[in-house]
Amino acid sequence: MRKKSPKLVPLSPVPLYNQLKELLRGQILDGSYPPLSRMPSENELGNAYQVSRITVRQALNDLQKEGLIFKIHGKGTFVAKPKTFQNVSTLQGLAESLSQLGYEVINRVHSFKTVTANTMVAQRLQMAEGTKVTEIKRVRLINREPVSLEVSYLPLALGEKLEKADLITRDIFLILENDCHINLGHAELAIDAVLAESELTHALHIEEGSPIMRIERLTHSDDGTPVDFEYLYYRGDAFQYRLRIDRQRHERPLAGHGGLAP
Amino acid sequence: MRKKSPKLVPLSPVPLYNQLKELLRGQILDGSYPPLSRMPSENELGNAYQVSRITVRQALNDLQKEGLIFKIHGKGTFVAKPKTFQNVSTLQGLAESLSQLGYEVINRVHSFKTVTANTMVAQRLQMAEGTKVTEIKRVRLINREPVSLEVSYLPLALGEKLEKADLITRDIFLILENDCHINLGHAELAIDAVLAESELTHALHIEEGSPIMRIERLTHSDDGTPVDFEYLYYRGDAFQYRLRIDRQRHERPLAGHGGLAP
Repeated sequence: MRKKSPKLVPLSPVPLYNQLKELLRGQILDGSYPPLSRMPSENELGNAYQVSRITVRQALNDLQKEGLIFKIHGKGTFVAKPKTFQNVSTLQGLAESLSQLGYEVINRVHSFKTVTANTMVAQRLQMAEGTKVTEIKRVRLINREPVSLEVSYLPLALGEKLEKADLITRDIFLILENDCHINLGHAELAIDAVLAESELTHALHIEEGSPIMRIERLTHSDDGTPVDFEYLYYRGDAFQYRLRIDRQRHERPLAGHGGLAP
Repeated sequence: MRKKSPKLVPLSPVPLYNQLKELLRGQILDGSYPPLSRMPSENELGNAYQVSRITVRQALNDLQKEGLIFKIHGKGTFVAKPKTFQNVSTLQGLAESLSQLGYEVINRVHSFKTVTANTMVAQRLQMAEGTKVTEIKRVRLINREPVSLEVSYLPLALGEKLEKADLITRDIFLILENDCHINLGHAELAIDAVLAESELTHALHIEEGSPIMRIERLTHSDDGTPVDFEYLYYRGDAFQYRLRIDRQRHERPLAGHGGLAP
């Protein structure tokens, strides 16, 4: 079937900005506007579709919120790159998972220190509040671009071994397995969305209020001991989690997944 | 071990606002400030911790971005409710999953119509671009609060059956299984974070620029036919996905998960 030539319908119950947004979204997703190309200006779009500049601005504003385009002051509006994605159907570190796909993953270690476990960390790692733990903050760069800030808490005995390891190029998961001889079992994840606050704006070179996909991840060894509790903050404009979920009539009891419950 | 009495360290390399933020976060998470309680004012916090109002404001600002507190103009700052979470280790509809936990899930059907499949929808549902499909927009309310906007695309033959079904209280998944006699197989999900744009602000009663967890979900019948392609937009301040991921040495080939690849 041939693609209809794009036009807006002034008398439609769907507002014009919404029609324009859908139309431009389609053209971005089908490659008519390729990644990193410059979009037409507000004036050009207004003339092309016979709508006001306010209508164009609202449509572009919405597409920017969705992460499909970005603006550079004084330069115009550009099409965003497709997001990098990690397949999380199995538990893997970022480098382990992405290097298979030809990406380069490097880490900047922002801090490595011994801290006192707060309520949350102590509960997750099943230790008394106030116990000393290792805290590691790393910025992860995919193809040289900062994509996530990861804050990891581990028991001190493991932290001491990590201190000697190459945290710049290696995943913590692989160091735990290969250097610390811990077989990893499963992880419990909680995923939500927040806005970038001050620490994230600096670490990831993004504006305050940018969208962040936040993951709380508690990783266990294969005997069920919690070994690594992490907060992962991914740039919403650059990264995506993908997974496959199966329909099962007789699902596992919920109790088996309760590790992150408060 | 006894909890230390909270205090800030002026000479620490960690900025004061950051120390205050961590301290308040701890008190929120351990229940010292319970959900929906009012936080002390900026002045009160400034006096209590001997820091400037700017420092207090920065700390509160960051906690608000994280979704731990919210402000009501003229009333003060309040502790957010814990997020509702859905366990997505198995494929279930929202009502199916949450009603087991005692939540009431109701849907507002915003629109139900026949539209022309755009590039993305056509590709996902494996049909020619321009084919007619059913588009359903629903706002989902958990315990009477709007939590997500869901936009579903289905082949017209299924859409016609859904039109006669009770979309207010029933999940589409259960209608597909019980009324349409389709056995669901698996779904492929892509998860990221975006900011709320105009349609979402209206549908979910949130401010423009609020954090949104966005899911693209393509659900297949058990013979592998794609039957339901959806965009799910969850309020970042109210909702969380949880899942368990297992470490497997010999992971499934990536090709098996490629359904959402562009």
